[in-house]
Amino acid sequence: MTAIRAIEDRIEIPAGTGEAIELAAGQVIQVVDADGRQVADLFAFVRDNSAEYHSAPHTRAFTNRLFPKVGEPFVTNQRRPILTLIADDSPGRHDMLIPACDPSRYRELGAPDGHSSCSANLVVALGKLGITPPITPQPINAFMDIPVGPGGNLTWNPATTRAGDSITLRAEMDCVLVVSACPQDLVGINSGAPTPLVVQILKK
Amino acid sequence: MTAIRAIEDRIEIPAGTGEAIELAAGQVIQVVDADGRQVADLFAFVRDNSAEYHSAPHTRAFTNRLFPKVGEPFVTNQRRPILTLIADDSPGRHDMLIPACDPSRYRELGAPDGHSSCSANLVVALGKLGITPPITPQPINAFMDIPVGPGGNLTWNPATTRAGDSITLRAEMDCVLVVSACPQDLVGINSGAPTPLVVQILKK
Repeated sequence: MTAIRAIEDRIEIPAGTGEAIELAAGQVIQVVDADGRQVADLFAFVRDNSAEYHSAPHTRAFTNRLFPKVGEPFVTNQRRPILTLIADDSPGRHDMLIPACDPSRYRELGAPDGHSSCSANLVVALGKLGITPPITPQPINAFMDIPVGPGGNLTWNPATTRAGDSITLRAEMDCVLVVSACPQDLVGINSGAPTPLVVQILKK
Repeated sequence: MTAIRAIEDRIEIPAGTGEAIELAAGQVIQVVDADGRQVADLFAFVRDNSAEYHSAPHTRAFTNRLFPKVGEPFVTNQRRPILTLIADDSPGRHDMLIPACDPSRYRELGAPDGHSSCSANLVVALGKLGITPPITPQPINAFMDIPVGPGGNLTWNPATTRAGDSITLRAEMDCVLVVSACPQDLVGINSGAPTPLVVQILKK
């Protein structure tokens, strides 16, 4: 369980949208699944250098694990810790194998042009801070349940979170965190109905 | 087993180095582990657009698998097939979870500056064709044996290939394939001694 801390700021992220949040080294935030069964795509960039960002493959190599355990870091493409998972008040099923949804994904699924996506949310959210990401990095898909079966088969399950479930992260350097309430409504990962997220910045 | 075809061209890749090879759609190549127990890092870029390249997470989402089976494609960050695995004459253990080795990896391992790396090999090989990659994409680590244990634990095993083992790939579009004979000699994946690779371009 997370130690109880006062909340310094609370940011609501409407269903299907994203937000960029500037964090100073040492700041602690909670990403809360407001209504349950919702995936949160998280991206983290070094504050003054968007060419250095959280990298899923580098984090796997650093932790020797598909997803960090509580107490372990997420590292950048320069293998430097950028975030640490300090608490997990959820069923503990998270994904770091699947890319962000993007226009090519929705084309593949037959959606009309202009379907919102985590990739577009990333660009819009960073754009408000004057930042252009060099690419869409592979996200941390919090609450996304993609079990690896025998032979490496992947299954896309609905998120198992309940309303109020959360993960808590500490910034290990000054960074920009982008949180996208995944708008995927054509594949069952959000149980068909994308819902909002809440980000709580905790007092030190 | 691969159908027997005549060899059109044969490129030797000395231990620890890399080479970029231009392929036309439909061309078939074999990546051969010359002496055995050697990892081959493979990167593929669309020929006239280095911003589109093979993407490990997009391939996992496309195939619903950690690594394609024979007959399945590798896709780009635009979810378009760029290569297909058409034969596997090896023990069939390949990795698509771990990033390319790079200067930060060798710093972490205590190597002196300037240790060669798959990431540097990529930049040098593409540079000969006048191409600057936007990032180091996560490679296809052919012959690299990283089993996923219960709970998602990853183990770094020595490659199990024997001399002459190979995989065979077909280009699905005009592309540039970079093949790096991984220079990793501080972690046991190449059994301590990096050795050469051979790439054979097969006649249609």
